[in-house]
Amino acid sequence: MTSLGRLFLIPTPLGDDAEPEVLPAATLGILARISHFVVENKKSPWRFLARHFSQDRLNAISLSVLDEHSRAEDIPGLLQPALNGFDLGVISEAGCPGIADPGADLARAAHLAGVGVTPLVGPSSIVLALMASGFSGQSFHFHGYLPRERPERQKAIRRLERAAREGASQIFIETPYRNAQMLDDLGASLSADTEVFIAMNLTQSRQLVRRCRAEDLGRYPELRQKEPAVFIIGG
Amino acid sequence: MTSLGRLFLIPTPLGDDAEPEVLPAATLGILARISHFVVENKKSPWRFLARHFSQDRLNAISLSVLDEHSRAEDIPGLLQPALNGFDLGVISEAGCPGIADPGADLARAAHLAGVGVTPLVGPSSIVLALMASGFSGQSFHFHGYLPRERPERQKAIRRLERAAREGASQIFIETPYRNAQMLDDLGASLSADTEVFIAMNLTQSRQLVRRCRAEDLGRYPELRQKEPAVFIIGG
Repeated sequence: MTSLGRLFLIPTPLGDDAEPEVLPAATLGILARISHFVVENKKSPWRFLARHFSQDRLNAISLSVLDEHSRAEDIPGLLQPALNGFDLGVISEAGCPGIADPGADLARAAHLAGVGVTPLVGPSSIVLALMASGFSGQSFHFHGYLPRERPERQKAIRRLERAAREGASQIFIETPYRNAQMLDDLGASLSADTEVFIAMNLTQSRQLVRRCRAEDLGRYPELRQKEPAVFIIGG
Repeated sequence: MTSLGRLFLIPTPLGDDAEPEVLPAATLGILARISHFVVENKKSPWRFLARHFSQDRLNAISLSVLDEHSRAEDIPGLLQPALNGFDLGVISEAGCPGIADPGADLARAAHLAGVGVTPLVGPSSIVLALMASGFSGQSFHFHGYLPRERPERQKAIRRLERAAREGASQIFIETPYRNAQMLDDLGASLSADTEVFIAMNLTQSRQLVRRCRAEDLGRYPELRQKEPAVFIIGG
């Protein structure tokens, strides 16, 4: 058993424009000695890896893909480098692997196979947004994406508002091109005095955070930009 | 307005034994230029600050306390350095300020006063545990502490199990000296095949993570140690 590699969960910066220094030395040190990676797609991690590896090291790297098209039976095979004694790194498209991407399936398979799992420190847009919101962090619920269809989405928003009133901050995300529609739905569905928070482009130069009452959301046209955003209904 | 300082939310390592390199260069760079801090108690941050400041800088630091005894009317006064044009840092006892400590009240006051709020990247035991668990990160609920009294706690555990079955990972913490009792309550309250995850001493040399079925919890006496732990019921 001692000859197994470990599975390292390696966070990445939250966008192309992110400050390069958002990863701690402990994370970068482990990254530097791994040669086998599991990624969501083979193209996007190269910019990140090229920043931290020499060309010689890059040439020696092996990448396997785990994405929403991966079948359950493919996952144990992705662990093979660790079973062969090599440390294996999972890299998310942005932020922390396993939080809102297929990385969790690989961590699960590692536990089943007796492969050690080590999570590394890095940026989580969910936690950064919650910290900045000033809403309760004693209890919070992350929902991922809300339903796309407007009636179901407005219903979900009102359900989240009720849960927020019971004390738990309600966090969700949206694809950037639907931010403006989400703001309209929040304005239309929430009580006027319910407090909401929006964080956009966290850790990047164009970072923007705003906490306001639902009735005032229309006053901030900058929140309608098509940029990565986290939304919180206050607890 | 341009002469206001900003409020920076500054994470700290997760324990005395934590690797010193768990904070990114971007966080350390901002820390190095701040002289006014709000802390939970005046003693514990010195070890952390002494690691990053010269003695001259340490002598010039001003610390104010925000803890569970602080009154609501004290909080705007804590913001005064930022209103006077100085950047202000909030430091948690461990991990991310505002997530499970009074820092959130200061972020709220900053939003009300028009003081800019910037969250910095650092270790979050909640996110690290969720990453390592392999449970769903698409939807998760952090509950803080469960009730102390056994009947209420066992009832809470069963409620969390039902919520986990609907797909949301259920995360909570316990004070270290009650870890063994929590494991007993989980074993007694959960269905035998419900999957649970425990992470102990995250980012530290004595880090321990374990995912197993509730019926197998008794097999791992090392989980009964009185060490900081995060518990997850699988989603």
